[in-house]
Amino acid sequence: MTSMLRILPVGGLGEIGKNMTILEYEDDILIVDAGVMFPENDMLGVDLIIPDYHYLLENDRLSKIRAVLITHGHEDHIGALPHLVEDIKAPIYATPLTLGLIEAKLREARQLNEVELVSFRAGEILQIGPFKVEPFHVAHSIPDCVGFGITTPAGLIVHTGDYKFDHTPIDGWPPDFAKLAEFSQRGVLALLADSTNADRPGWTESEMELAQGFEDVFRGAAGRIIVATFASLISRVQIAAAAAQKFDRKMAIAGRSMRDAVKIARKLGYLEVPDDLIIDIGQAVNLPPSKVVFMVTGSQGEPSAVLGRLARGQHKQLSIQEGDTVIFSAHPIPGNEELIYRTINQLYRRGATVLYDRIAKVHVSGHASREEMKLLINLIKPVFLIPIHGELRHLKLHAQIGQTLGIPAERIAVVENGTPIDLTPYSMTVRDRLPGGYVFVDGSGVGDIGWAEVRDRDRLAQAGYFFAAVPTDGRGGLAGPPQLSTRGFVNEKEAEGLLLEAEKLIARTAAEAQRQGVPISSSAIESALNRFLYDETRKRPVIEVVVV
Amino acid sequence: MTSMLRILPVGGLGEIGKNMTILEYEDDILIVDAGVMFPENDMLGVDLIIPDYHYLLENDRLSKIRAVLITHGHEDHIGALPHLVEDIKAPIYATPLTLGLIEAKLREARQLNEVELVSFRAGEILQIGPFKVEPFHVAHSIPDCVGFGITTPAGLIVHTGDYKFDHTPIDGWPPDFAKLAEFSQRGVLALLADSTNADRPGWTESEMELAQGFEDVFRGAAGRIIVATFASLISRVQIAAAAAQKFDRKMAIAGRSMRDAVKIARKLGYLEVPDDLIIDIGQAVNLPPSKVVFMVTGSQGEPSAVLGRLARGQHKQLSIQEGDTVIFSAHPIPGNEELIYRTINQLYRRGATVLYDRIAKVHVSGHASREEMKLLINLIKPVFLIPIHGELRHLKLHAQIGQTLGIPAERIAVVENGTPIDLTPYSMTVRDRLPGGYVFVDGSGVGDIGWAEVRDRDRLAQAGYFFAAVPTDGRGGLAGPPQLSTRGFVNEKEAEGLLLEAEKLIARTAAEAQRQGVPISSSAIESALNRFLYDETRKRPVIEVVVV
Repeated sequence: MTSMLRILPVGGLGEIGKNMTILEYEDDILIVDAGVMFPENDMLGVDLIIPDYHYLLENDRLSKIRAVLITHGHEDHIGALPHLVEDIKAPIYATPLTLGLIEAKLREARQLNEVELVSFRAGEILQIGPFKVEPFHVAHSIPDCVGFGITTPAGLIVHTGDYKFDHTPIDGWPPDFAKLAEFSQRGVLALLADSTNADRPGWTESEMELAQGFEDVFRGAAGRIIVATFASLISRVQIAAAAAQKFDRKMAIAGRSMRDAVKIARKLGYLEVPDDLIIDIGQAVNLPPSKVVFMVTGSQGEPSAVLGRLARGQHKQLSIQEGDTVIFSAHPIPGNEELIYRTINQLYRRGATVLYDRIAKVHVSGHASREEMKLLINLIKPVFLIPIHGELRHLKLHAQIGQTLGIPAERIAVVENGTPIDLTPYSMTVRDRLPGGYVFVDGSGVGDIGWAEVRDRDRLAQAGYFFAAVPTDGRGGLAGPPQLSTRGFVNEKEAEGLLLEAEKLIARTAAEAQRQGVPISSSAIESALNRFLYDETRKRPVIEVVVV
Repeated sequence: MTSMLRILPVGGLGEIGKNMTILEYEDDILIVDAGVMFPENDMLGVDLIIPDYHYLLENDRLSKIRAVLITHGHEDHIGALPHLVEDIKAPIYATPLTLGLIEAKLREARQLNEVELVSFRAGEILQIGPFKVEPFHVAHSIPDCVGFGITTPAGLIVHTGDYKFDHTPIDGWPPDFAKLAEFSQRGVLALLADSTNADRPGWTESEMELAQGFEDVFRGAAGRIIVATFASLISRVQIAAAAAQKFDRKMAIAGRSMRDAVKIARKLGYLEVPDDLIIDIGQAVNLPPSKVVFMVTGSQGEPSAVLGRLARGQHKQLSIQEGDTVIFSAHPIPGNEELIYRTINQLYRRGATVLYDRIAKVHVSGHASREEMKLLINLIKPVFLIPIHGELRHLKLHAQIGQTLGIPAERIAVVENGTPIDLTPYSMTVRDRLPGGYVFVDGSGVGDIGWAEVRDRDRLAQAGYFFAAVPTDGRGGLAGPPQLSTRGFVNEKEAEGLLLEAEKLIARTAAEAQRQGVPISSSAIESALNRFLYDETRKRPVIEVVVV
């Protein structure tokens, strides 16, 4: 078998290759990104999901990992690092802003001394083991983003990270088209490219157009302005700060994660905000309404973030007042719409006017749309196309785009996480998917719950539980009345009658057992209760019977 | 106090006045619509929500109800009737198609003999008590829809129902503009109008444009076509049937609710489909792929509907095959996006191509957009505007539209469900909101669970339960080892260690109690367990301790 370059996207069933991609050539491994996923609505009680990288824990691969390369500083690309560094001690490479955010994250987790952090700038060349890594600048919604050109013994791989072809980004640093053209001239074996917006026609608007949209809002708003966005959407903070300066408002930042991100970005020179623009919330609430803008977290309707608390009137320092204008500067992540719209309704109920992307130009995507994806493919002219970053439907649409541009179907690999793709200079082979999937983070536990526990929680969520502790006399007979309790099943009034009936039922079941000369069994009581409760209510609570 | 007309939208916290509106003038009451709401993602285990009409159950109002008027045959307007007729025996008035659908619903619930059903046609005049009711035709996504002009002693009220100003609807019956103009000439006291699309600029596309979109898909599809939509979206079935005829495909309908709706619509002449077009699924699966189209339920990603089962490969008669084209002809209802996209990904995984509204013209809204809302207001020229049908954010935007057209803010009432609006010929007064809210339907119970039970289910969903049955000797001491069990908390491996430790903890707590000369109490054990489990896992399961 000739040597091959293996590309392996890992993660769960959601977005593919978004949170982590493994590149393996013989005895050397690179990791690109280490992000978290957020649980779907039916992954009950789960806090976070980290990529399932057990592939790296097998066959002595840990010792082969040469570097963890990070494309940019968003949570879905760096959030799993505190978990990763417990297993993987390879140095983490990132641009200065990204590294600043990683540093803060590892410091908070008391893991800053676990690994080496290596800073690079777009345009540099890094020789890491047998890999020549060339980070190139791309535009997205946080500054200092890169993709990677990685020259391997099998050929040159281009990984875009998250990107859009913004010619007028807010930091004045457009994507490095020249580098992409240079890669193309050298010949690109495989292109791994962002598919997030593969169902979005045309070109994604520039951040600069958003600046215009923000100015329109600032010009028209008589009262206070509250801008909600992601903590790490530094470019959005820059746009709001510029509008605040222009319209003579001070800016206060609520939400620790955003305050930290802004602090790091300012310190490293990625956010141009004059010192006197930023004030404390305590000061801000005493300014005239027309003189202040608040930046807050909670743009996805998260109940515990600042905006969620404002919407419910539960923030300590700040409260919504008549005449406030709230800007949702974010697009709903699928699954969050309900919480977002509920938050918007609550804000309206408190007297605010709410602007969101359906009714005002207050958000642009950070990802390339279909025409940009075409431009990328035609710029790079890869032999093989591997769509990544997106759900399966996005990857399929991205693959269709590739085909319309002349890449034959057999040179495009649409795979799901956990599926190895083996490349030689002449071939691409998709292997069978490896077992594995999600790793749930819940409370302090990583991987201490799985689908079985989530399914149990789902059953409990459907109809609660019904407990019976049945005291026996040691000879198989009932020693007293059973102790029954129920929760989440029916309301107290209904429960009263059901508990009385259930008590009689248990006594009858026990008497029947005694007549047959067998001891009372929890399973006999369980199945009697199951039948009875379903007949009475058409619900199926979790039933637990303990014979004591 | 002079006599007033009271308008009272009832329902939950979601869409306002969508599912039921009460009109009360002295001793006479009319009800408009009686629909169901679907639970939000965090209303765990709830099957349906019906409007909270306890207002009607008080003060002898039941005897004053003269009629239940229905605008059209969608679930969110007729779905609560089987519950309603248990309390309210007033006749139900509807157009022939709507009445056919209601009849089927009541027959299934064995309640057909409970109430009188009265058929009317748009354009007729009904004198009901002191009310002159004039149903007028509107366009929507099901045929035979009406709004109501209701002449009351206080003045003329216009209630639009769900509407759009489609000039080329698929049934060739555009809305009755002349009637609206006539109302306007007579003078309209209050306009209650659909706000659903108040955040959608421009005009809603005509159903006829959709016909074009469907033909494009049918022309291009080499394999089978599967169209998913709502069971009662009769207009969509008509469009698909026309395309099937044109491109020489037979049509099979999967899903009982859709088959029933189609049967009723055909019988009553609201769906023009030649007899030989419709075939059984059994026949359809044996036809060449290019000769068949399947109509299926499940366009909102419902796991138990036909499309959900197809996506998971769990339908008895039908399965997805390579080359199938699946059309999602519906817009995601907020909260359903995640399930819908998951279904789309599963369909792709099985080899289908999936078309949905972001990437193909396969759906148009059934509701008026902002320009239509303006036209309506300018046609009607009401003294008072009462936006209904929509979440609070939609109503607020609708109110803004009214203001830009010159209706002063004080003549627009944006209220939430349960808020009475009292009208005289000269005034509109918004009263305090009445107590009440949701009525949950869960299993066979109506109102047998409430927020307390949903909150319990939520706690169980977060971290499961931990159950301890502690046997005592009657003198306050431990009579044996406690019996512990847990579910949905941590996985079995983790649980093993925790259960052992918890057993020791309970023994220590019991010993401590005995040393202090007090009997073992479940609350002491509970709080010890609570602390222990949280320290170990950072999770808070529901803990239940029973001392036996």
